[in-house]
Amino acid sequence: MSLLPSLSQLHDPNPFLRRHLGPDAAEQQAMLEALGVASRSELIEQTVPPGIRFNRLLDLPPALDEQAALEKLRAYAEQNECWTSLIGMGYHATRTPTVILRNVLENPGWYTAYTPYQPEIAQGRLEALLNFQQMVIDLTGLDLANASLLDEATAAGEAMALAKRVSKSRSNRFFADEHCHPQTLSVLQTRAEGFGFELVVDSLENLDQHQVFGALLQYPNTHGGVHDLRPAIAHLHGQQAIACVAADLLSLLLLTPPGEQGADVVLGSSQRFGVPMGYGGPHAAYFACRDEFKRAMPGRIIGVSKDARGNLALRMALQTREQHIRREKANSNICTAQVLLANIAGFYAVYHGPDGLRRIAQRVHRLTTLLAAGLERNGIKRLNRHFFDTLTLDVGGSQTAIIQSAEAARINLRILGRGHLGVSLDETSDESTVLRLFDIFLGVDHALRIEDLDSEALPAGIPDALLRRSDYLTHPVFNLHHSETEMLRYLKQLENKDLALNQSMIPLGSCTMKLNASSEMIPITWPGFADLHPFVPLAQASGYKALTDELESWLCAITGFDAICMQPNSGAQGEYAGLLAIRKYHQSRQQGQRDICLIPASAHGTNPASAQMAGMQVVIVACDTAGNVDLEDLKARAKEAGERLSCLMATYPSTHGVYEEGISEICEVIHSHGGQVYMDGANLNAQVGLARPADIGADVSHMNLHKTFCIPHGGGGPGMGPIGVRAHLAPFVASHPVVPVPGPDPQNTAVSAAPWGSASILPISWMYIAMMGPQLADASEVAILSANYLAERLGGAFPVLYRGRNERVAHECILDLRPLKAQTGISEEDVAKRLMDYGFHAPTMSFPVPGTLMVEPTESEPKAELDRFVEAMLSIRAEIAEVQNGNWPAEDNPLKRAPHTLEDVLGVWDRPYSLEQAVAPSAHARAHKYWPAVNRVDNVYGDRNLFCACVPVEDYR
Amino acid sequence: MSLLPSLSQLHDPNPFLRRHLGPDAAEQQAMLEALGVASRSELIEQTVPPGIRFNRLLDLPPALDEQAALEKLRAYAEQNECWTSLIGMGYHATRTPTVILRNVLENPGWYTAYTPYQPEIAQGRLEALLNFQQMVIDLTGLDLANASLLDEATAAGEAMALAKRVSKSRSNRFFADEHCHPQTLSVLQTRAEGFGFELVVDSLENLDQHQVFGALLQYPNTHGGVHDLRPAIAHLHGQQAIACVAADLLSLLLLTPPGEQGADVVLGSSQRFGVPMGYGGPHAAYFACRDEFKRAMPGRIIGVSKDARGNLALRMALQTREQHIRREKANSNICTAQVLLANIAGFYAVYHGPDGLRRIAQRVHRLTTLLAAGLERNGIKRLNRHFFDTLTLDVGGSQTAIIQSAEAARINLRILGRGHLGVSLDETSDESTVLRLFDIFLGVDHALRIEDLDSEALPAGIPDALLRRSDYLTHPVFNLHHSETEMLRYLKQLENKDLALNQSMIPLGSCTMKLNASSEMIPITWPGFADLHPFVPLAQASGYKALTDELESWLCAITGFDAICMQPNSGAQGEYAGLLAIRKYHQSRQQGQRDICLIPASAHGTNPASAQMAGMQVVIVACDTAGNVDLEDLKARAKEAGERLSCLMATYPSTHGVYEEGISEICEVIHSHGGQVYMDGANLNAQVGLARPADIGADVSHMNLHKTFCIPHGGGGPGMGPIGVRAHLAPFVASHPVVPVPGPDPQNTAVSAAPWGSASILPISWMYIAMMGPQLADASEVAILSANYLAERLGGAFPVLYRGRNERVAHECILDLRPLKAQTGISEEDVAKRLMDYGFHAPTMSFPVPGTLMVEPTESEPKAELDRFVEAMLSIRAEIAEVQNGNWPAEDNPLKRAPHTLEDVLGVWDRPYSLEQAVAPSAHARAHKYWPAVNRVDNVYGDRNLFCACVPVEDYR
Repeated sequence: MSLLPSLSQLHDPNPFLRRHLGPDAAEQQAMLEALGVASRSELIEQTVPPGIRFNRLLDLPPALDEQAALEKLRAYAEQNECWTSLIGMGYHATRTPTVILRNVLENPGWYTAYTPYQPEIAQGRLEALLNFQQMVIDLTGLDLANASLLDEATAAGEAMALAKRVSKSRSNRFFADEHCHPQTLSVLQTRAEGFGFELVVDSLENLDQHQVFGALLQYPNTHGGVHDLRPAIAHLHGQQAIACVAADLLSLLLLTPPGEQGADVVLGSSQRFGVPMGYGGPHAAYFACRDEFKRAMPGRIIGVSKDARGNLALRMALQTREQHIRREKANSNICTAQVLLANIAGFYAVYHGPDGLRRIAQRVHRLTTLLAAGLERNGIKRLNRHFFDTLTLDVGGSQTAIIQSAEAARINLRILGRGHLGVSLDETSDESTVLRLFDIFLGVDHALRIEDLDSEALPAGIPDALLRRSDYLTHPVFNLHHSETEMLRYLKQLENKDLALNQSMIPLGSCTMKLNASSEMIPITWPGFADLHPFVPLAQASGYKALTDELESWLCAITGFDAICMQPNSGAQGEYAGLLAIRKYHQSRQQGQRDICLIPASAHGTNPASAQMAGMQVVIVACDTAGNVDLEDLKARAKEAGERLSCLMATYPSTHGVYEEGISEICEVIHSHGGQVYMDGANLNAQVGLARPADIGADVSHMNLHKTFCIPHGGGGPGMGPIGVRAHLAPFVASHPVVPVPGPDPQNTAVSAAPWGSASILPISWMYIAMMGPQLADASEVAILSANYLAERLGGAFPVLYRGRNERVAHECILDLRPLKAQTGISEEDVAKRLMDYGFHAPTMSFPVPGTLMVEPTESEPKAELDRFVEAMLSIRAEIAEVQNGNWPAEDNPLKRAPHTLEDVLGVWDRPYSLEQAVAPSAHARAHKYWPAVNRVDNVYGDRNLFCACVPVEDYR
Repeated sequence: MSLLPSLSQLHDPNPFLRRHLGPDAAEQQAMLEALGVASRSELIEQTVPPGIRFNRLLDLPPALDEQAALEKLRAYAEQNECWTSLIGMGYHATRTPTVILRNVLENPGWYTAYTPYQPEIAQGRLEALLNFQQMVIDLTGLDLANASLLDEATAAGEAMALAKRVSKSRSNRFFADEHCHPQTLSVLQTRAEGFGFELVVDSLENLDQHQVFGALLQYPNTHGGVHDLRPAIAHLHGQQAIACVAADLLSLLLLTPPGEQGADVVLGSSQRFGVPMGYGGPHAAYFACRDEFKRAMPGRIIGVSKDARGNLALRMALQTREQHIRREKANSNICTAQVLLANIAGFYAVYHGPDGLRRIAQRVHRLTTLLAAGLERNGIKRLNRHFFDTLTLDVGGSQTAIIQSAEAARINLRILGRGHLGVSLDETSDESTVLRLFDIFLGVDHALRIEDLDSEALPAGIPDALLRRSDYLTHPVFNLHHSETEMLRYLKQLENKDLALNQSMIPLGSCTMKLNASSEMIPITWPGFADLHPFVPLAQASGYKALTDELESWLCAITGFDAICMQPNSGAQGEYAGLLAIRKYHQSRQQGQRDICLIPASAHGTNPASAQMAGMQVVIVACDTAGNVDLEDLKARAKEAGERLSCLMATYPSTHGVYEEGISEICEVIHSHGGQVYMDGANLNAQVGLARPADIGADVSHMNLHKTFCIPHGGGGPGMGPIGVRAHLAPFVASHPVVPVPGPDPQNTAVSAAPWGSASILPISWMYIAMMGPQLADASEVAILSANYLAERLGGAFPVLYRGRNERVAHECILDLRPLKAQTGISEEDVAKRLMDYGFHAPTMSFPVPGTLMVEPTESEPKAELDRFVEAMLSIRAEIAEVQNGNWPAEDNPLKRAPHTLEDVLGVWDRPYSLEQAVAPSAHARAHKYWPAVNRVDNVYGDRNLFCACVPVEDYR
């Protein structure tokens, strides 16, 4: 090229691609050479079965560069209209303290972290989650809280399932107050159908007419009413039924908490604690229960334990209960949380403290009281006598006029039937909000003045008997960090304890921890995406519509499906939603008897759990020694099931990390028996641009946008699991009771609280696809190249358990540690912990095969990082050899003692290996030492001595 | 208060104040008790001399809460119109890579860091600056570069001064090509006047008609012309004159660098390397010179040295040369840099690498070539035959019409006299930009197509002889971090090496390291503030005008001055600008002979340096033993100066940290002799709301917005030093040749390149004042309380050197380490380094008194942090006692060995103190250990073996 080339010579069709991929062209070439192949396409031909190969360019628009993509997306954000939304229904405007916004939500140190399965390198976010749990415990008045669920409506579903698990009642009926939020009722309806429960939605007054195993009340209810819960709870307990209460967290600062009124389970959303509404999510639901139900508690619980030195250490508690979803016995498939959002809500409480939160709640309530008084004395009839922040008003024939003047003022009210309107105030409301509402409801000629009203002794919105008198948030963590300097440093201290993607590779098999690019992340906090209530009129959300329409069409192009349902807000939710669509499809064809779901033995535990939640009976299909589905067994099981065969759930490439050759035949077998094929999308990163689920034979599949499409893991959520379906299933996917989703039957009930799930993180995936364009296939190819490179370089030291055609793996590989363990006693866990001393996060441990490590490098890891990982693993192998040959004792060696901490260094050093070997076993660790905050955590102790709240400060000493 | 209080009871007049202040009310009370006073007002009465007390509320609008302030400021940002600015003149649109934007510019880990005076805890930003220097060296083709200067125009001024220092010519004349940027010429004019140089601005063709000590050429020149520099340089060298070249950094990717053509000094702006235009700044100027001039180099230079273990370590080199400005011998007062922006520019080069940068330059150049060809063949006459990115066009009578159609297209062109127009393309330009320009210049009916033009062999914009053929950016750092994952981790690795305000207190006397609140920082990267060219028509910058007008009026209210000049972009620049105003004022009254500037012995070194740059003769005034100005000596000196007395420069409270009682009398003495009073505003944080410089008697004072008004230090810049003046001086402050500033005489020359200095960081100070309102005084009071609290608690262990009335200190205090050093050999430096082991940044060392530490806690430090600092200092005192009583050897103890690193831990531990004592001497250090990256840095070695570029990678091993 000349020194002054022409524009066409300079044209770079895809500048982002080079940023997204770890290895550059020369490095890829070196990796290919190590594999003995000439080109990436040769490798892919060796690896991906030709029968399923997608041999065209993906039908996606050409890649936009980062700036152009951001500009296009900004135009969408600006199309959204951010009115003042006083709709309520579980979503409220809030102010994210900017110190939290900038240092948590916009900080890769927090958002690129993984789920804290390895607690030694996750003490920061574990502490943040413990704060969240303590906050929930304090505010609900219950004994125990989990570390968040997906949203309030699914949390209600989990409460119903828990009630069934623990109630001694023999009823199959669950009661829900008709004044619960409609989206909650809809999700309950969905779940009840799956479980085969009878859901009774009725007035609370009629509770005593029903024999039930549990009930859900809402407090305050969806129309704002505040009622004493005690009579209903007493009635429920009288029939051994479980009392569940969905409560507004802010109201609990002023109201007697449900726990003090005897509730067994309290749940709700923590959105209004500083998390933007985001057109529906993601937000963290909270879930609290009485101590006796702790083993039935859904979701993750953070607990206090101790480490190998006896020092206090945090971890996920009772993991045997939850993490490896109990397959055929499960009645919950929840296996993730909303960690990033729960952290924000917890930090919001840390930042404001009890006094600050109370002041916010008091202010919201007082403004509502003034509004109520002003409207009442001007003749507007209020339907809820008592209230916290929400009024339901009977405006009769004026409804249309009032709505019009609200629109003119860019205010959204809740529009109800029969001339009723709802209005909910929030943290951002002020005197001017109330005045504008007076103008809207009463016309501008009213003579009301806020100061006058405020000086009066107005009738109480909260009955005296329901005023909260108990303390809360008395732990020092909620009382020490109120200056911004303190808060900033506290956040930094926690961040510094954790290892996230911004420091090193997180090679988690099946979790696809790829780059979360800055340009993908920046838009989500733009006000145009962050500040929309999910139930605004669609005309105000036209930017979101443009974005979701486009993203859906792109996902269709990528997967070959005909339609997308965006609602499921996790992968497991996607499974569930997909299976429900299959069930409804069969029912629509008078094949309702089809209820058997075939699942390979190697499947992730969520598969059988989801199937059972969808009312299916799980039948396990055997795998052969190569880890593939045993085709003969499959045929036998399908034949056995016969007219009862509903579907097969299969992961592709398999959870064993290989492209099964027989996948097309597998699908044919199922279809030939009248069944449907559900493809688990966890491993979609190995397919994009190379094969399409629908072409292979899948009828429905979920896409983990938080894996393949760059939504960061957030330390354990948010996720997004939309499903793609072929046309015949499209009418049967979820809709929504408040905002019917275009496409499916509008009568279909919901699977999530919000119509488009966690809408505000969709811009991340949109940006990724917009910037990659048809070259998305390159990402898959490099992911496969990197995995094969690791398999090649590590296979000698650690056998690769499964390989596919031509001895290739897909995008991940399983290293078998069992032989070494048998010889040396060094386990996969020891290796995982030892990797921390080298500055790495461990691969996936013991999934899908106990005693193994599953490694997925993704396309974003630079070759230098892959090589560093290889060197660490080979160095560890050499350490194991030292144990093997007796140079180090079986229990006193760097592997069994791993990870090492500062505490190890400070004590007397009397070990058979050097301190240097312990903490700086590689040049990189020496130069960029990351220190695990605690020594190996004692899991058994923590579960035996379950403690899931903030620790008294003296215990830290 | 009832459980349901009224709004008025809930009213919080100043919610931000509580966030900004470190100690809350109860903690303040505890601190007051420790001081034996009942209230803050009692303490202030004891401390601030009553004669100067400002006893009213500051006349500022009521405080806005964070959200309201952000909303108001957002409205200002939206008032600014971000057109496509093709004005050039040293400012160009650029794209900040988002990974750098988010992880550097928006990250407190980078922006809250202090100047790297303590290199052991600053290796991250030192490495970033070394990258910047290497980049400048490579691109300019010179031997040595500094770590940035304030802007291109002042860098040109520094080049002129350097030329005078090093040239062997006896001429007093400096030549500047008339085709330099006008703002550069204006600043040169200002500087030349101060120095008494004769500045000749003429056509380069006439260079040989002048005998000069140096010259400044521009390459490419302001009108885009690209000329061979060799003839002029040869001519200059022939007369022993210094050849200085202001060069466009991006053009140097394609042009033969000035260094290769023989230039002695090359300087310019690095703005277009990823730093937003920001309506003028802040940006980093670069400055490179030949090796032989290194000791004359202005500004900071980062150099390579070794630490106590012999490992490679970075530091600021040749500090004796620069840092303690050489008082009476100075001809530069530069004592800061633009570190944050230099880092961004350096990272931009790391991110793009040599190929990426070349591609950007080639693309800009090719687009310009197409534009030139299209215009030329349609009859538009171009005045510069050769060009890189800028064309000057003679459009004759069409000028007005063309300007109008450019306006319609929202494009700003450079408007020149005589029917000329300038257009400069940039990184963000593309085919559509060129097409729009064709439409504008030729009307929409032209038949030009970019593809057609691009396929042609067009006349070269750059003459073949000037095409660059040499390599650049070959160091691995510019070639390894091109994937975003690599880049992100590299940024994080560097950040993790450094200690910034987000981790602990930085108690630097005279530097006021207070909270830089998130809400203050968020607006600066909003496009409405970031994307404006400084020379756009004022109508496009009405938001900036509203902001600066308001900020100026607030600063007037705070200081008592009548007018503000926003132009000086550092404190020292403010001094200089203020003294120039005094000089011009005297001249206007036919008192031009007044040229003596009195300066107390305790003054900061910039004071005499600024005075000399302003053409004044410095006379030192003695201080008494209490550190106060010796009033009798002052009177004597003033009398001695007589009709030659120009002014006094005084810092208040004094650099000794006390409120001098005599300040009013001091001012009166000066005034009585016809002099003016310049008050150095470094310590304004002790005055705000308590006293006002103008009331005390100052005629002019600068305000360090980066100290008192919350602009973060950015690791060593940006700063802002606007000056306040009384009305009689207002006509004499700086104006600007391109955009005359309202107020002063428009003929006044400039002191900085941009009319309002570093305009884009003014929102930070605006936010601070808007959110604090009249309660700014509370900040001053708490700052004083905190300093007195530290003095009280530490005074027993380390004598407080100076105290004022009632034994109180102001907002800082000096701890005298000399007695201990005399007894034990433990120096102030040992204590400073030892503090790092406790996780603290050292206080100011040996300023203003050698052998001391000056501590300034600011109002933002929580009491817990103050107490932690006290405990660390007392613990260190106990350690000194161990040396004193012989328990530890004089040279082998934790103080002399400090700071301790991981390397210390890994070696054999054979010291007389324990490893625990070494690295975890406090509970806090143990729990939140911060590890200095290197051991104590060897200053002498680094200066003796000066090496100021990136180190070969093998040397790191």
